[in-house]
Parts: sequence; structure tokens; C-alpha cells
Amino acid sequence: MAELMKAVIIDRENGFGLKDALVPLPEVGEHDVLVRVEAAAINPADRRLLMRARDNTAISILGFDACGTVVQRGSAVQDIAVGDQAYYAGDVSRAGCFAEYQAVRADLVGIKPKRLSSSEAAAMPLTVLTAWELLHEQFRLERGRLLIMGGAGGVGSQLIQLAKRLPEVEIIASASRAQSRDWCLELGAHRVIDHSLPLASQLPEAVSHAVLASHPDGYLKALPPLMQPFGHIACIVPLAAAADLNPLMQKSLSFHWEYMFTKPLFRPVGRETQGQILNRISRWLDEGLLRSTQSQCLGAVCAESVQQALTLLAQGNTVGKLTFSNT
Amino acid sequence: MAELMKAVIIDRENGFGLKDALVPLPEVGEHDVLVRVEAAAINPADRRLLMRARDNTAISILGFDACGTVVQRGSAVQDIAVGDQAYYAGDVSRAGCFAEYQAVRADLVGIKPKRLSSSEAAAMPLTVLTAWELLHEQFRLERGRLLIMGGAGGVGSQLIQLAKRLPEVEIIASASRAQSRDWCLELGAHRVIDHSLPLASQLPEAVSHAVLASHPDGYLKALPPLMQPFGHIACIVPLAAAADLNPLMQKSLSFHWEYMFTKPLFRPVGRETQGQILNRISRWLDEGLLRSTQSQCLGAVCAESVQQALTLLAQGNTVGKLTFSNT
Repeated sequence: MAELMKAVIIDRENGFGLKDALVPLPEVGEHDVLVRVEAAAINPADRRLLMRARDNTAISILGFDACGTVVQRGSAVQDIAVGDQAYYAGDVSRAGCFAEYQAVRADLVGIKPKRLSSSEAAAMPLTVLTAWELLHEQFRLERGRLLIMGGAGGVGSQLIQLAKRLPEVEIIASASRAQSRDWCLELGAHRVIDHSLPLASQLPEAVSHAVLASHPDGYLKALPPLMQPFGHIACIVPLAAAADLNPLMQKSLSFHWEYMFTKPLFRPVGRETQGQILNRISRWLDEGLLRSTQSQCLGAVCAESVQQALTLLAQGNTVGKLTFSNT
Repeated sequence: MAELMKAVIIDRENGFGLKDALVPLPEVGEHDVLVRVEAAAINPADRRLLMRARDNTAISILGFDACGTVVQRGSAVQDIAVGDQAYYAGDVSRAGCFAEYQAVRADLVGIKPKRLSSSEAAAMPLTVLTAWELLHEQFRLERGRLLIMGGAGGVGSQLIQLAKRLPEVEIIASASRAQSRDWCLELGAHRVIDHSLPLASQLPEAVSHAVLASHPDGYLKALPPLMQPFGHIACIVPLAAAADLNPLMQKSLSFHWEYMFTKPLFRPVGRETQGQILNRISRWLDEGLLRSTQSQCLGAVCAESVQQALTLLAQGNTVGKLTFSNT
């Protein structure tokens, strides 16, 4: 294998944009696999990391959604073989997937769904892991009325699909444009409300679980009167300001953070559940029970396409996921 | 029965202190029992309600922990008979128990433990319901390391006792004085730390569940580095200021409010669980598995004794519960 690979790196000399470069191949630890990246997807997390790159010199290569072929494995890896096709979100503390090769812990990796293209598969991991952990580990949701603020986004789209598999859950998604409204209904939302209008008149019955997938500050303020007692509110993106929590007291509401990278960063025991979840999602995708949330493929993984994706994300009009494909 | 009863009422003409007065007996609804109050206890909630009385003219009689004899029951009440001895925390939206008689929904009432005096029983309901709902309904705690900030207070004392019945839970209580430290250890805490000193050096191993029982703002800031990933923090008293929640994101921490009055206020279905919990606590008290957290009885229920209790609470040096007894 060559000693250098192509990668999209942060251009620290030039305004913290992105540029294509040749960099050394990553080191492969004993618990890692080395993957030749064939497709990738972008997430709001990439945008946030890029903004933090000025203060954090450890951030070099972005990208936390990938699909590719395992070309090497560490000595302690058992369940994954060279030649397997893998998909994963990886670990925010290591170099990302906007590169020709990436090293990733094998227990974070699932086997790619057979029926999907590489870029359709790459659209899934980060958002489906977030949605899965949120519904099944944070909410432990079995029944209730679920409100998803920002239903057409990456995580919102997965939440709708996964919640749809819970027969006693009513799914209410929010969207403000015709395209995103249709997207939510197609994925299985029972009802769509318009988050640009007052919420109370659109939610005559109180909700038991609510997810703040974007612009969380305002909705966190608006939600307490609309929630059932002992209800649960989860957030997946940072808040812009400090929050007054006292309005959540009278109904004994709970507030949960769901951050997919918590397991890779902090939890040696339990990290393997992310590979397990991805394998189950893979089966469901192959059985047609779920579909890829990819909405648009922007071409090969390179500085130009990643920059284009970041611009589209910043405009806030995307539905589902933007992906890249090298094949 | 007389048409008037003695009660401790808020003295709106005179600086919002307390005074003894004769007031009409409460009306007894079809789901209510009327109780002759024989003992009562005070809670920080009484202090907060008194402070809010300037803005809320509906608040008249304080007191939300009582023990007494049922002297009348509404037409729809089945499980409780005239002559039963009841104990309960009641409903914050109705007149309280610092009075000769109180009307309370029968489903919120438990039968008094036989081995306890009335004032020992009156020390229990509000705090034990808070602690029970917190451990079993909010945390669903079965195993882990539980940190109780303010272990010697009313709710802290109950949390220690109830958590002690979960064999796989390590209980770490905080206290800053010798008397409160001893109290926590006697009730069953495995270890006591000093909350007036830096926490990190006293907590070498991360905690899975933490309860903020007093002064929550500062401890909420201090906790994230000390918590296990996916840990749970609960709060039972209002925060003084808005809170920066972003430091809780990286470990996917959850924040829960536990407010015992949520069920009486908002939850027609589920309210009866408070009577059921109190009946179970009653059995455990009679079997010697728990003990009353009463620390001091201040005499009969009257303006002077309640005012004395409010002053002691404000000084913040109490352990366990302050009670009143008419017998």
C-alpha cells in the first residue's frame, strides 16, 4: 500500500477552509480496521468541528459517516475480515473519513447492507445511531406521542423511520416547507406540524416525548405547556444560551442529551453496541423495513464537494442526507 | 361538627407572616376524605409557597405532610373508612394541613404505620414520595453509584433509606457538619463526602446518578466531570438562575425534575400510586425496614411553632424533619 493518501484537510494557513492534500496513511491499532473509503456523508457535526478547529489543533480530517472495504485489520480484531464492506460513524476524537483511508475501531463498525449502494449506506450511521440510542436507550420508548422538531433533517428522518416500528407510538414531525413536509409523511410520520407557526394550536393533545433536532433554544422554552406530566425532552445539538429549567419542574419533565460519540469517547464497555445496532439496521435495510435517508450525492470525496455540502447545510434547506461517492 | 376550625393562615395585612385564625371547615368532595389533623411536618415547599403568597392570593393555608383520623368521606370513596388513621402529603393546589381539619383526595392517602406516633408518621409522606418517585420512576435505579447532595435533609434522608434497599447501589451522601454526617451514616449511607470542599478529589470514581437536594446551581455546574457517561442528574428544588446545559452533552447526561405534586396536579391516572406507595412505606415502617426521619417535634400546630420551624429551615442546619403534634 502507498504511504500517502488523498485527504480533505483543514486549511489552517488560509482562513480555515478545506483543501485537498496528500497525508500519511493512518496508523492501525490492534483493535482497528483500516477501511478504503468508498462513500461518505456529511453531518452538522462536521460544521461544528470545523468552527472549533481554530482552537483545537488536533482536528485535522473531518467526516463521520463512511462506507468502504476493509483492507487491513489489527491483531485483536476477530469479527470483521479483510474484504468485508463496512459502514460506521467512527469516533469524533480520531481522524475522519473525508480521506482515501480511515482507521476505525472494529467494534464501532457494521457490515454494509447488501441492497444499498455505498453512498446510500454512508448516509445512515451517525443519524441512525443517534436516533436508535435516543428512542431505545434514553427514552426507552414503547408507547406515547412523539414530537420531532425538525423531522426532515438527518436525525429527524431516522427517528420517524425507527419510531414507525413501534406500533403504539404516534409520530408528529415538524417541517415548514412543502418538500420537507412530504419527506416526513413519506418516511412514516402520522402528522406534520409547521414549526414556523405557533405550536400550541397545532398540538391539542399533549406529547409524551419531544426531540429538539435543530434550533433547540426557542422550542425548549415553548414546550413545557405542551408536554404530558413526566414527559421527556431530548436534544441533539448544542444550545445557544443558558436555559431556564424551572418551567420544566411543575410537570416533573426530564431533559436528555443524546450524543452518538459518547460511547466511542467514554465507554469502553458498551461501545460494541454501536456495531451491533448498525448490523441490525443493515438487516432491516436489506429486508426493506427501512430505507436510506440519502437525498443527494454530491460526487467524489474532495474539498470542493465537501465545501459545497457545508454550504448547503448552512442554508438549512436540505432534507435527509448529503453524501459523496468515490465509485 | 363545628362550622369553624382553627388554622394557621397567611397574614396578608401584616407583612405576610403567619397567624392563628378561625376559618370555615373545608368542603369535602365526592373523592375526598376529611381528616382531623393530629400531626404535621414542614417542608422547604412551605417556605417557597409563603414567599409566593404575595402574588398568588389562592394560597391560604400551608402544610403538606399530615397524619390524622378520617372523620368523613365523600360518596365515591371506597378504600378508606371513617375512623382510619391516614397519612399523606396532599395537593399543593388545595388548602394545607396546618389546620384542625383538612380535605384531601382519598387516592393520595395511605394508612398510617401502626408502630409510629402521629408526628413520626407525619414526617414521612412528602419526602418519601419524592424519593420513591425519583429512584423508581425517574431513575428506575437498580444498580450504580448514587450521589446525594444534601444527604441529611428531608428528601436526602429518605433517598438514603430507600436506596439502601437496592443491594447493587453504592450510596454516597454529602454533608458538611459532624451531626449531619453521622445522621447520613446511621440511615445507611456507605460513604459521606463534604460538600463544602471541592468534590473531585472526594469522588475518585464517577457516579451514575446524582440528586441535587439543595443549592442545586453550583453543584449542577460541578457535576459533569464527575459523572459516568449516560448518567442521570435529578433536582428537587428550583434553580436560582438559567443553566448552561451544553457541558452535559458530551457524556449524554440526563437531567430530571422530580416534583411530588405533579401527580396530584396533572395526572388523574397515576395519582392513586401515591396512596399505594404510602401504604407500602407504612408496611416497611411497621416491619422495621425503614424508620421515621423525624428529628424534632416543635409542639402543636399553631402559628408560633410553624414560624419557628420556618426560621430553623431558613438557617439550614436541620437534619431530617421538623414536625408538630396536637396530641
